[in-house]
Amino acid sequence: MKMTIDQLAALVNGRVIGNGSGVIEGAAGLAEAKGSDASFVRDAKNAAVLKELAATAAGAVIVPEGVPANGKTYIEVKSPVAAFAALLKLIAVEKEIRRPAGVHASTVIAPSAKIGKGVLIGPFCVIEEDAVIGDNAKLIAQVYVGPRSKIGPETLLYPQVTLREDVNIGARCVLHAGVVIGGDGYGFYFADGRHNKIPQVGTVVVEDDVEIGAGSAIDRATTGRTVIKKGTKLDNLVHIAHNVEVGPHALLAAQVGIAGSTKIGKGVAMGGQVGVADHANVGDGVQIGAQSGVKGDVEAGAVLFGSPAQPIQETLRQIFLIRRLPELFKFMKSLQGKKE
Amino acid sequence: MKMTIDQLAALVNGRVIGNGSGVIEGAAGLAEAKGSDASFVRDAKNAAVLKELAATAAGAVIVPEGVPANGKTYIEVKSPVAAFAALLKLIAVEKEIRRPAGVHASTVIAPSAKIGKGVLIGPFCVIEEDAVIGDNAKLIAQVYVGPRSKIGPETLLYPQVTLREDVNIGARCVLHAGVVIGGDGYGFYFADGRHNKIPQVGTVVVEDDVEIGAGSAIDRATTGRTVIKKGTKLDNLVHIAHNVEVGPHALLAAQVGIAGSTKIGKGVAMGGQVGVADHANVGDGVQIGAQSGVKGDVEAGAVLFGSPAQPIQETLRQIFLIRRLPELFKFMKSLQGKKE
Amino acid sequence: MKMTIDQLAALVNGRVIGNGSGVIEGAAGLAEAKGSDASFVRDAKNAAVLKELAATAAGAVIVPEGVPANGKTYIEVKSPVAAFAALLKLIAVEKEIRRPAGVHASTVIAPSAKIGKGVLIGPFCVIEEDAVIGDNAKLIAQVYVGPRSKIGPETLLYPQVTLREDVNIGARCVLHAGVVIGGDGYGFYFADGRHNKIPQVGTVVVEDDVEIGAGSAIDRATTGRTVIKKGTKLDNLVHIAHNVEVGPHALLAAQVGIAGSTKIGKGVAMGGQVGVADHANVGDGVQIGAQSGVKGDVEAGAVLFGSPAQPIQETLRQIFLIRRLPELFKFMKSLQGKKE
Repeated sequence: MKMTIDQLAALVNGRVIGNGSGVIEGAAGLAEAKGSDASFVRDAKNAAVLKELAATAAGAVIVPEGVPANGKTYIEVKSPVAAFAALLKLIAVEKEIRRPAGVHASTVIAPSAKIGKGVLIGPFCVIEEDAVIGDNAKLIAQVYVGPRSKIGPETLLYPQVTLREDVNIGARCVLHAGVVIGGDGYGFYFADGRHNKIPQVGTVVVEDDVEIGAGSAIDRATTGRTVIKKGTKLDNLVHIAHNVEVGPHALLAAQVGIAGSTKIGKGVAMGGQVGVADHANVGDGVQIGAQSGVKGDVEAGAVLFGSPAQPIQETLRQIFLIRRLPELFKFMKSLQGKKE
Repeated sequence: MKMTIDQLAALVNGRVIGNGSGVIEGAAGLAEAKGSDASFVRDAKNAAVLKELAATAAGAVIVPEGVPANGKTYIEVKSPVAAFAALLKLIAVEKEIRRPAGVHASTVIAPSAKIGKGVLIGPFCVIEEDAVIGDNAKLIAQVYVGPRSKIGPETLLYPQVTLREDVNIGARCVLHAGVVIGGDGYGFYFADGRHNKIPQVGTVVVEDDVEIGAGSAIDRATTGRTVIKKGTKLDNLVHIAHNVEVGPHALLAAQVGIAGSTKIGKGVAMGGQVGVADHANVGDGVQIGAQSGVKGDVEAGAVLFGSPAQPIQETLRQIFLIRRLPELFKFMKSLQGKKE
Repeated sequence: MKMTIDQLAALVNGRVIGNGSGVIEGAAGLAEAKGSDASFVRDAKNAAVLKELAATAAGAVIVPEGVPANGKTYIEVKSPVAAFAALLKLIAVEKEIRRPAGVHASTVIAPSAKIGKGVLIGPFCVIEEDAVIGDNAKLIAQVYVGPRSKIGPETLLYPQVTLREDVNIGARCVLHAGVVIGGDGYGFYFADGRHNKIPQVGTVVVEDDVEIGAGSAIDRATTGRTVIKKGTKLDNLVHIAHNVEVGPHALLAAQVGIAGSTKIGKGVAMGGQVGVADHANVGDGVQIGAQSGVKGDVEAGAVLFGSPAQPIQETLRQIFLIRRLPELFKFMKSLQGKKE
């Protein structure tokens, strides 16, 4: 990646303010950037950011409209984050595996599996009977694809992903290393002095444009389907139980856990380590703060926090009052003193 | 799987109410079932369930005694969940890997390892020196079995399980994809300005009929043994530290973490994301609500909730009173107003 | 491992009290030890430990100065834990994989990769282009090393570790099974009705003497570096987000999660399941109790507990007062009764 500031501006539909002839070879945050890096500012009104901007060594800074001139070279755009992402995309492409499309000789593929065009399958993968790998999909290495499972076109599986049998992954998904899709749901019944397994014969559907973080585990349904709807993004080490539905376009941060049969609506956003109990219904657009614990249904648009979770304003007020409890007990004591 | 309702009833020791000649080819929940599916009702008295039952398209519904007739075809049994599980088992068997028993040519097996009869070992497994694989065990693919480790008969290991050296897995266990058994316990001592490793030379014993969810990690003991006792079921992403004992017949939901040397008794049940501190002793039959944090010993039979965990009634009462704190502060203010 | 008590004492610079001719073949805790085991006592003043010491069957007990004689054979040393660790090290060495150094024939190594001297690379590893494996490093089996990634000398990677491209692992590190280093940071921007990926082109630096527990995931930076500084020890299933810095010499217990761009200082210690929000700055020497939730900056040396985290004394006082809330409400009621 090497281009002039003018070329970069053309790429991101931006307007150069300053000298466009400098050469950009990388990207970095304002504080870390060198003269050969482009950087960016998201918010033209954040004082701390403007201070960093004044001090940056970046060769060019992608900015929104309204950033005051300070002698630096700017590329003014409508959406700095989108423009910066476009630049990062150019850099990312250079870092990709250079291995040509094709199936590595070591990989074990059942004769009945169907492999699309332009597919890259790296070493030590296992593709079981009747699996289907879509066009231009990439399985970097050591991936397991169970019987009858399907991977959509242009989907990327990093090393050591396991897809169990009969799961269905959409197009343009990204599954990070160590992801497990289709493990048995956690279902047992107690009889004869022990927990007996309820076989889990349902499946998992991961729709298009879903990204799933490293080490996350999504269980198959008891019967029917566990569904991660289109455009949903899961961070690392997330647990999704059997028969759950999430999304579309939901964001679940790292270490979130969703218990069985719960439905998480469109555009829901959860902070890290949130837990949601089973059979809950979390409405569209709900936002849930980190470490919260949700039980039961949540109305669309609610903003929750706490364990147990409540509307965030109530939780924050209670936290404030809990911190004033010593005052309250002191007052009670003073009254009791009077009474005696 | 294809059988008449009469045949299904015979299989589960049930009594057909209605027409037993219909054909069943699958299983589903009441709401999702088609005419070729059998479904089931667990609780004959749940009004919401009876409503779903009235509306179901299922060809047959497995029910307990006492469900009012509504024109649907029932199979009446003593334990609907056990009968439904038996049906699911038939379906599950059909979905199993069809690869015949035997060791895949790619797998690397030390000459001193002992492989039982009827064993299935898939591609890219590694079986180290003096390991023992019991009769009819299945290692689906890409499994690692360390030196001197033992796997009991009929145990099933999904892809990308790691068993470190000297661990002992019982009979009929199920280890889901990505499970790690026998990683080093987290033991260090501080000296010379740094944390120095305490080598972890103990082992892990997983007794018979244990199931361990995807991505869970069970550490080896410093010396002695970490033990998961028979019939215990762990969900996904559970952490078990060194020298812990769990079970028998305990249930630990997803993302539970148990710190070092803690003992979890018989039949203990924990909700998701529970944490238990080190050197605690949690008695038989204890139940712990999701996200609770337990420190110290817990009497047998206790029902706990909260972080820090307390008897659930106390925690619920405190939560109720915390929500009334604004009222209390208002009252204090009114009294203070009077006082002035 | 087989040596006399005298030999063991010489090894650990200790003084034998009693008969040094007995033979030691193993190590165990006081309660589990047999006559052929050595055990140890950390704290000479703990009454429960002294009781266990009186009852132990251990052939020799490593003790600090000042433990009262009780007829057992002691090895008196300055640091019993260091001496016991030295003994465990001898036992651990015997349990190591006996495979000679060298690269297993099945492993796939890019021609441009550089493999150091004395390296052990087990079956089914993948070493991509321009990767560098330091002298005496061990990759037990099924490890993935991405393009241009570097592993320092004497570093140990257990099975099924994934290092993505361009990550840099120091010397003498231990990465347990299932660890993922360099997965994409969780970065998206919302536009056109969906979450769009911000490519993550930064990297991860893991400095010397770091240990990372099974299943932990450390994301690469958006730009720049995620850094785990020297001597830091992470337990199992820990999540480290993009652009985080941790350490040096920090201790993060199991299931801890650190959100993006947060800095965790020198010698910080966190209990299990702690969460730290993004862009926080946790000062040197901070200690944080299990399950705490930290947001914003924390002064060096602080001791925090709770979710939200506060100085531990405040949180404990609040917990104490919350438990007394019923008393407070009763008092209010009694006053209100009077008022009416």
